[in-house]
Amino acid sequence: MTGATARRRGRPPRAESADTRDRILAAAREEFSERGYEKTSVRGIAKAAGVDSALVHHYFGTKEQVFQEALQAVFAPALKAPDVIFEGPAEGVGERFARFLFGIWENPVTRTPLLAVVRSAVTNEVAASVFRRLVAAQLLRRVASQLGLPDAELRAELAAAQLVGVAIMRYVIKLEPLASADLEVIIRRIAPVVQGHLTGP
Amino acid sequence: MTGATARRRGRPPRAESADTRDRILAAAREEFSERGYEKTSVRGIAKAAGVDSALVHHYFGTKEQVFQEALQAVFAPALKAPDVIFEGPAEGVGERFARFLFGIWENPVTRTPLLAVVRSAVTNEVAASVFRRLVAAQLLRRVASQLGLPDAELRAELAAAQLVGVAIMRYVIKLEPLASADLEVIIRRIAPVVQGHLTGP
Repeated sequence: MTGATARRRGRPPRAESADTRDRILAAAREEFSERGYEKTSVRGIAKAAGVDSALVHHYFGTKEQVFQEALQAVFAPALKAPDVIFEGPAEGVGERFARFLFGIWENPVTRTPLLAVVRSAVTNEVAASVFRRLVAAQLLRRVASQLGLPDAELRAELAAAQLVGVAIMRYVIKLEPLASADLEVIIRRIAPVVQGHLTGP
Repeated sequence: MTGATARRRGRPPRAESADTRDRILAAAREEFSERGYEKTSVRGIAKAAGVDSALVHHYFGTKEQVFQEALQAVFAPALKAPDVIFEGPAEGVGERFARFLFGIWENPVTRTPLLAVVRSAVTNEVAASVFRRLVAAQLLRRVASQLGLPDAELRAELAAAQLVGVAIMRYVIKLEPLASADLEVIIRRIAPVVQGHLTGP
């Protein structure tokens, strides 16, 4: 019996629990990405992480809570958007927002989990509510608060709607010519729209 | 044995086959709306229509083909868009397009099957390809041809992306304040964007 196996008999030391937790979370991200919310089970996540289902419940609670934690990790880069887009001249806000979000979508590493999140949120009510909490509270509301305009939240959402709509038609449904269009051409057309929603009349 | 039952033994007369075909199509629309593309089976459609699976194959072919026919029926109202939106002054194209699509989304009768179509297209590649063929070829390409501008197809898709993005965030993910916002407020903000994509510089 190795030391590592022996150790599992007692209460795991703090470092090992952080490690196990991360391993479960990585497995959860993989499972949700591959199968979507509905077809993913706590049992499947546990199996992929090589642990008992009870341990998944111990660290995260319900499937909804595991999803929220996995989503939080997927969204971590996107949640930096408010800092990035308001750094620089006000008239560049629309372009920076567009570049920032398309940067995440164009990168296959960040696109795959994002695709899974969008698919899950569109098809499952629990996933949608997690998406609402995260995106609304942590991303769009922060963008809105920087705008300091009446209707700021609605403005942020309409700007996001243009970006999300393009992302869905380009990366998910793959409608042509949009799917193969040069990103710079898209940004040139989309940036003024986002700018208009955020800071226009 | 009634006359109607006796008749089924031979080749059905033309009127009866149109009737059966419609019944299968209505059942297919119901099944796809309730379950989405992936969870719907030809067997389930046949059962709901009260016919044998072989008859579904006889009239429509594969599940993909049944889906395409059902989608065609769901999209029939939306496919009138090009006629409606180009009837009237050119500067009102954006508003008419927005009003037309939101009219379909706001009506629960037309919204339910549309929701199913969007969910299916976002989660299933076969459904997405049917969606592409229909929406691209029959709706957006016709809008584009009326524009007569370079990049007309891309313009039509970016306009549609704004409308689809708002629809998904309002009706599917139900992000607030967008989900409860007054439709006129949304149209006032969205119409100029759609107009800009379609006819702007």
